[in-house]
Amino acid sequence: MRFGLELRGDPALRVSRVATLSQAAPGSLSFLANSRYRKQLPTTRASAVVVGPGDAEACPVATLIGANPYLVYARIAALLHPTAQVAPGIHPTAVVAPDARIAASASVGPLCVIEAGAEIGERVQIGAGCTVLAGARIGADTRLMPRVTLYARVRIGERCLLHTGAVVGADGFGFAPDGGAWVKVPQVGSVRIGDDVEIGANTTIDRGAIEDTIIENGVKLDNQIQVGHNVVIGAHTAIAACTGISGSTSIGQRCMIGGMVGFAGHLTIADDVSITGCSLVSASIRQAGSYSSGMPTVETRAWRRMVAHLRRFGEKER
Amino acid sequence: MRFGLELRGDPALRVSRVATLSQAAPGSLSFLANSRYRKQLPTTRASAVVVGPGDAEACPVATLIGANPYLVYARIAALLHPTAQVAPGIHPTAVVAPDARIAASASVGPLCVIEAGAEIGERVQIGAGCTVLAGARIGADTRLMPRVTLYARVRIGERCLLHTGAVVGADGFGFAPDGGAWVKVPQVGSVRIGDDVEIGANTTIDRGAIEDTIIENGVKLDNQIQVGHNVVIGAHTAIAACTGISGSTSIGQRCMIGGMVGFAGHLTIADDVSITGCSLVSASIRQAGSYSSGMPTVETRAWRRMVAHLRRFGEKER
Amino acid sequence: MRFGLELRGDPALRVSRVATLSQAAPGSLSFLANSRYRKQLPTTRASAVVVGPGDAEACPVATLIGANPYLVYARIAALLHPTAQVAPGIHPTAVVAPDARIAASASVGPLCVIEAGAEIGERVQIGAGCTVLAGARIGADTRLMPRVTLYARVRIGERCLLHTGAVVGADGFGFAPDGGAWVKVPQVGSVRIGDDVEIGANTTIDRGAIEDTIIENGVKLDNQIQVGHNVVIGAHTAIAACTGISGSTSIGQRCMIGGMVGFAGHLTIADDVSITGCSLVSASIRQAGSYSSGMPTVETRAWRRMVAHLRRFGEKER
Repeated sequence: MRFGLELRGDPALRVSRVATLSQAAPGSLSFLANSRYRKQLPTTRASAVVVGPGDAEACPVATLIGANPYLVYARIAALLHPTAQVAPGIHPTAVVAPDARIAASASVGPLCVIEAGAEIGERVQIGAGCTVLAGARIGADTRLMPRVTLYARVRIGERCLLHTGAVVGADGFGFAPDGGAWVKVPQVGSVRIGDDVEIGANTTIDRGAIEDTIIENGVKLDNQIQVGHNVVIGAHTAIAACTGISGSTSIGQRCMIGGMVGFAGHLTIADDVSITGCSLVSASIRQAGSYSSGMPTVETRAWRRMVAHLRRFGEKER
Repeated sequence: MRFGLELRGDPALRVSRVATLSQAAPGSLSFLANSRYRKQLPTTRASAVVVGPGDAEACPVATLIGANPYLVYARIAALLHPTAQVAPGIHPTAVVAPDARIAASASVGPLCVIEAGAEIGERVQIGAGCTVLAGARIGADTRLMPRVTLYARVRIGERCLLHTGAVVGADGFGFAPDGGAWVKVPQVGSVRIGDDVEIGANTTIDRGAIEDTIIENGVKLDNQIQVGHNVVIGAHTAIAACTGISGSTSIGQRCMIGGMVGFAGHLTIADDVSITGCSLVSASIRQAGSYSSGMPTVETRAWRRMVAHLRRFGEKER
Repeated sequence: MRFGLELRGDPALRVSRVATLSQAAPGSLSFLANSRYRKQLPTTRASAVVVGPGDAEACPVATLIGANPYLVYARIAALLHPTAQVAPGIHPTAVVAPDARIAASASVGPLCVIEAGAEIGERVQIGAGCTVLAGARIGADTRLMPRVTLYARVRIGERCLLHTGAVVGADGFGFAPDGGAWVKVPQVGSVRIGDDVEIGANTTIDRGAIEDTIIENGVKLDNQIQVGHNVVIGAHTAIAACTGISGSTSIGQRCMIGGMVGFAGHLTIADDVSITGCSLVSASIRQAGSYSSGMPTVETRAWRRMVAHLRRFGEKER
């Protein structure tokens, strides 16, 4: 088998699309990777289901058995639903500087702006309305969905995917106090993004104050994440939506960060750290493990009593 | 009376604009709906005020008395300040696929991109710089403010209003682990949005992994909300800004969700649930009611004592 | 000395760029303003370093001594790395209403839309793809980076800087309940932004319901901040990323607000208030000082014990 799977059922069976267990119709491939959905397996109408070894017995249809069914599903789904290919070339409404270097195999969509000195690699796809400012560089096979903005001198690696509204390289938030007012600190660094990085819709990654902000290979960023200046995010770390990372914080490799987590600045987070959603990370974390501070909801009346209890310990001289 | 109101004062009186109680000048209509502003009523210079029955006595000018003064105000204000009408037609700078179907009564603003197979209904107004990808559909009388992006195959109902920077249909955040790296799970579902939905600026709604993400009729979403893949939001639910909803969570009808609330994934929230701001919803909520976990600020020194107290209970073997 | 500094070293020394202490090469100017980096001073290869009086002895190279080294650094860096100047004029691909008033010294980038009655002041720079709706005004020397959107009638002061994706003047979130559904309350106010304001990427500032939303002079807003309708932010207040401010809240002057802070609506915050990150401000703050409610992370197992302890106090009849 192509994916290292064991098959139980008709080897000549064909599937043409993916479906959930509960909604599948004949011709569909489904999968079971989350035990929450196990009860849907016996009644599925899918033509075939990818399952782990423990679920094979319960599967009423053709069964593909693998150690990591979600991964297998991902790979088959990518074959069944390939990314739409765009014809190479520069749309006539794009505004492209004469000295921008754009590979002949790349596509630049309508109403894009590509400034002087930008470099667009082989087979890059730039969606409608993207803006690539002076000297920015995009590696081979990277795709920008519509309306992505790269500020000057930003560098994006190969095989990345950036979603609409992503802003890479805006100024970091740096101001020096001057007698009650603020003086802007020039943000002269840039942003370097590795290979195989995905950046979600409306996520913002600020340029460094002096050195660069760095996103290493294989990092996955969900929507509406804020990455401050001079942050480093280690390879293969995944971060869920709405998380904010303050300036100069360094996050290790293979971390898993929940949604709406706040990181203070100038911290160091070890490799293989998990942080659950809605936590505040206000100190460095030196050891791999799982960390939390998100408070779960209760009924509002109960919550008021909990807050009142805790507040007593805020008073002095207890 | 047109709005079912009782009038005390001159029936021939005319107003031409709305104003707050404190800033009103003659010719203005004002209203009192929040008791916080009651003390401004006796000195208002408005020509007329909409009030509830209990406030009529204190009103020094022409008085419109109704059970729901805020609702009455909303309707009169809409008459006094109608939405600017845009002439039908496609701006010559828009880039429109030959097979996009655009109603003759619709308007498409400058520098829009409308891809193949898109369908734009009657009297739809599409602001400058919007992007409507292949096969997306927009129902009658919906308005897109400038720079809204609809990904492929997204469906928007009738009479909706989408604000600038809204992104509907970007990929959900789905990756399968593969030995320390991540493999993208294709996001092959779409987004279906009902009628009379409002979507705020820079709000993002991801497409489903397999089935669709669904926003039902009458839902109101404020700015910078994140809606993950396969979320369902029930009819007439209102959600304040900066809230994030993780994938596959289902929220009931007529819920009121505060700002900056975080929802974990795969939850079920009942109808008629209220959640106060900055709460974390990490488990399903089966009963209507009000729920909270947002911790109110105190002086930083007191807060440190409160945290220190609570931390003692995190130690083992107590 | 031009910046009121004391110099120890060769007055003929020249620097051409800025660098961090640890990465500096000869020809670079560096600075020491955060004691966290003091240990890098003895081994720096910078040609000159700006330090406070207490660090002068430890500096191994030419030393510029000032009371506020970060401020001095900011000013020298601005000289060494000046903002790129853009030639005046309107790009031929911009769509500009005939009656828009654009100063001859201003520049309007490619693919911008400037609607009727807009006013663009002297030396204003408008980046690619910006949208300035009817009657909006921009004061002299303000810069809009690409893809900023100003809704109708918004006013921006002088010397402001707005980053990509900022949306100024979208509708506030106002709906009146009507028997289980919502009726939109027209948002007829606007937004007034003072001078020397910086607005970060993808930040949203809603227009007022009746009166205007107001951002006073010198305010600095980071990325992905949400400012609700009728908010007032006092002069020289700085707000870090991802913070959300609900409608009608008024924040004083010279406040420093951390990231991901949530403000309830209709509050009054005094001048000179600091709020640390991830706090919830649910009541007015009448006195200057520092306030907090962000809960720091601990190991998840310990956190569960802490939550379980607190929950006991939510039960009734204790």
